[in-house]
Amino acid sequence: MVEAFDAVDLIRIKRDRGSLSTAQIDWLVDAYTRGYVADEQMSAMAMAILLNGMGREEIRDLTLAMIASGERMDFAGLSKPTTDKHSTGGVGDKITLPLAPLVASFGVAVPQLSGRGLGHTGGTLDKLESIPGWRADVSPSRMREILEEVGAVVCAAGGNLAPADKKLYALRDITGTVEAIPLIASSIMSKKIAEGTAALVLDVKFGSGAFLKDIELSRELARTMVALGEDAGVTTSALLTNMNVPLGRAIGNANEVRESVEVLAGGGPADIVELTLALAREMLAHAGQPDADAEAALRDGRAMDTWRAMIAAQGGDPDAALPVAKETHVVTADRDGVLVEQQALPFGIAAWRLGAGRARAEDPVQHAAGIDLHAKPGDAVTAGQPLFTLSADEPERFARALEALDGAYRIGDAGDEVLTGGPLIAERIGA
Amino acid sequence: MVEAFDAVDLIRIKRDRGSLSTAQIDWLVDAYTRGYVADEQMSAMAMAILLNGMGREEIRDLTLAMIASGERMDFAGLSKPTTDKHSTGGVGDKITLPLAPLVASFGVAVPQLSGRGLGHTGGTLDKLESIPGWRADVSPSRMREILEEVGAVVCAAGGNLAPADKKLYALRDITGTVEAIPLIASSIMSKKIAEGTAALVLDVKFGSGAFLKDIELSRELARTMVALGEDAGVTTSALLTNMNVPLGRAIGNANEVRESVEVLAGGGPADIVELTLALAREMLAHAGQPDADAEAALRDGRAMDTWRAMIAAQGGDPDAALPVAKETHVVTADRDGVLVEQQALPFGIAAWRLGAGRARAEDPVQHAAGIDLHAKPGDAVTAGQPLFTLSADEPERFARALEALDGAYRIGDAGDEVLTGGPLIAERIGA
Repeated sequence: MVEAFDAVDLIRIKRDRGSLSTAQIDWLVDAYTRGYVADEQMSAMAMAILLNGMGREEIRDLTLAMIASGERMDFAGLSKPTTDKHSTGGVGDKITLPLAPLVASFGVAVPQLSGRGLGHTGGTLDKLESIPGWRADVSPSRMREILEEVGAVVCAAGGNLAPADKKLYALRDITGTVEAIPLIASSIMSKKIAEGTAALVLDVKFGSGAFLKDIELSRELARTMVALGEDAGVTTSALLTNMNVPLGRAIGNANEVRESVEVLAGGGPADIVELTLALAREMLAHAGQPDADAEAALRDGRAMDTWRAMIAAQGGDPDAALPVAKETHVVTADRDGVLVEQQALPFGIAAWRLGAGRARAEDPVQHAAGIDLHAKPGDAVTAGQPLFTLSADEPERFARALEALDGAYRIGDAGDEVLTGGPLIAERIGA
Repeated sequence: MVEAFDAVDLIRIKRDRGSLSTAQIDWLVDAYTRGYVADEQMSAMAMAILLNGMGREEIRDLTLAMIASGERMDFAGLSKPTTDKHSTGGVGDKITLPLAPLVASFGVAVPQLSGRGLGHTGGTLDKLESIPGWRADVSPSRMREILEEVGAVVCAAGGNLAPADKKLYALRDITGTVEAIPLIASSIMSKKIAEGTAALVLDVKFGSGAFLKDIELSRELARTMVALGEDAGVTTSALLTNMNVPLGRAIGNANEVRESVEVLAGGGPADIVELTLALAREMLAHAGQPDADAEAALRDGRAMDTWRAMIAAQGGDPDAALPVAKETHVVTADRDGVLVEQQALPFGIAAWRLGAGRARAEDPVQHAAGIDLHAKPGDAVTAGQPLFTLSADEPERFARALEALDGAYRIGDAGDEVLTGGPLIAERIGA
């Protein structure tokens, strides 16, 4: 610490709508990480940031200070360009699973540091852990080897990547200060920049099942993160995507892996394919291959080959049977008509209650638990036809899951408006 | 606790500019006092309140919840009406010393629970403790006796009067959330209402030496507190008074007692007399004596008699010599002219640095330390004439005190504007 400040003075500056200097932000993050600034001071600061905002330079300084709080990875010595993807999280969002091997099949390195699910949104590591033998912990040197040999690695971030962010995130979670754009942006981008990727595409979701419901806020977050990437020398673009309806037909863990494998085999639900290809094109363009035919790589098995190699490289058996739940409960249509509504958030909450998600970070997930959708909005249905199947290891979980689904879907008549909240990909942000 | 809430939900309501219900505020204050709501949650809430405000009902609920967190005193059984005064604090503000016995000399009970000084503003208990033998700790039953016999008692608040406020105030102090009108108002009023007074006059100061510099904020605070008093059945009025210039000629502890005794003897500086009489008239009117001649009681010795009885009732010797500092340093005028400026804040800070105030709550004060002003704004001065005298027990304190006074006063020419920031009493608020 070159210069020392007083935490109360800095809180007052932000409280009174002032701007914090680089030196002030560096001191604050360092002192908070070391415990000189108390949690109760940082939470007051977080609330002041949430309500009064931060300028572009402050957000950049905050992100850089978070990165400086820990180690930084460096993939500059790899023989191939690196590019990564980050999603703000949604219901049925398994896009990383087909996307990472698809992009890697073009000779691009995808060093994906992922998280576990919390609340109604799932986590990529939880999904992959439903594959027998697959392990999320990979050493930095092994990570490098896999990137050279296979091209894609999906693993847990080491504890020393932006530790200030880890501490601050836990604080924000219990103080009502999660939803601050400058803090979300610096939290995501500090980890992605520290991870050492040269390029990044962001899948920023909006809608009922997203972290930020409002498209305006999502747009602000996307713009802020794209600017942050630019300022840190990471080529960054973002897609604003619709999270009003669950993505694909599987919500859970093992069933999401199953659906991802369908996509890698050239099939799978149209929305998953569309979003996977759109994000792949962004990543491939960032990696210098704007004309690469990503669709062909799904069709001709190249992406599938990379998937199998990627799973095997982390100890997984790509041919092993995935876990199946002990109990299922099928919900059927009570009339003929058209499925006009299927809300992401209640389906996410229901899957969570079935055991697919966790309430506390230390809880396990039940890999076979989840929901399979047999109809998607716009589909014609007939009375008695299965609409969706709930799966769980404990049958007593069905009641609370069904409670969450009360009013979450609706069968209307042909010609009724189908409520999807607009197209899947609403907007692209970035150079 | 009848109903349980989640702290994060309540923080979010206030963060998003919503209103908290009576049940929510009751739960919050109770759970915070018991430690179920963590400091880091309460500080985020305090910042949200500071930035987003609270409605009149929320402030009333918060005040009542603070009162309910501890004991409540009750003077309803006294043979005389009760009325009290609270000042938001200033430089040279010793008004309680002449005021309490003056009002008590009319047969009114003044149950003054006072505090100690912190920062550049002094505390009434510190001042009175410079009188040999005088003690601030008085039991509730003895307090009642003194009120019956003498009429005025100035003592320390017991630890169980609004303990939630005590805990919250300590938190606000380190989290930059002191300056929130709803929190200031509920903090002051919870203690005054719990103290059991039937009527109250508030001396809400504005200007450079005040806690709130801005008259607009002071007015808002005064209005909020008057409304709170009304809602709680305590007859309340407020004077907005000017704290740009030190009050009177003495800043310290023993010297402020000396000046107060001069006022009680019918003399003293004009500003102290004016403010004492204005506040006394408010209190006497609240106690049913709108036509009482307060000035006469200063002139004819009745107020002085009550003062002597009040000091003696708490173990003090009204005839004892007050402590005198070991060292003095006189600052003289460097030219002929008119004293056109004398800023309250730097003089307060200088007295603090001389030893009259404390930096931490557990520090002692040096009762003889302080400043005596020999000229007040508007006075003609001649080169070499003493402007003020610094007193301290340790001569090494003079340098830092003089540093604070650099630029704090100015001698101009006859006809120059005298900068006092307007009249002493700017406004009255209340029914």
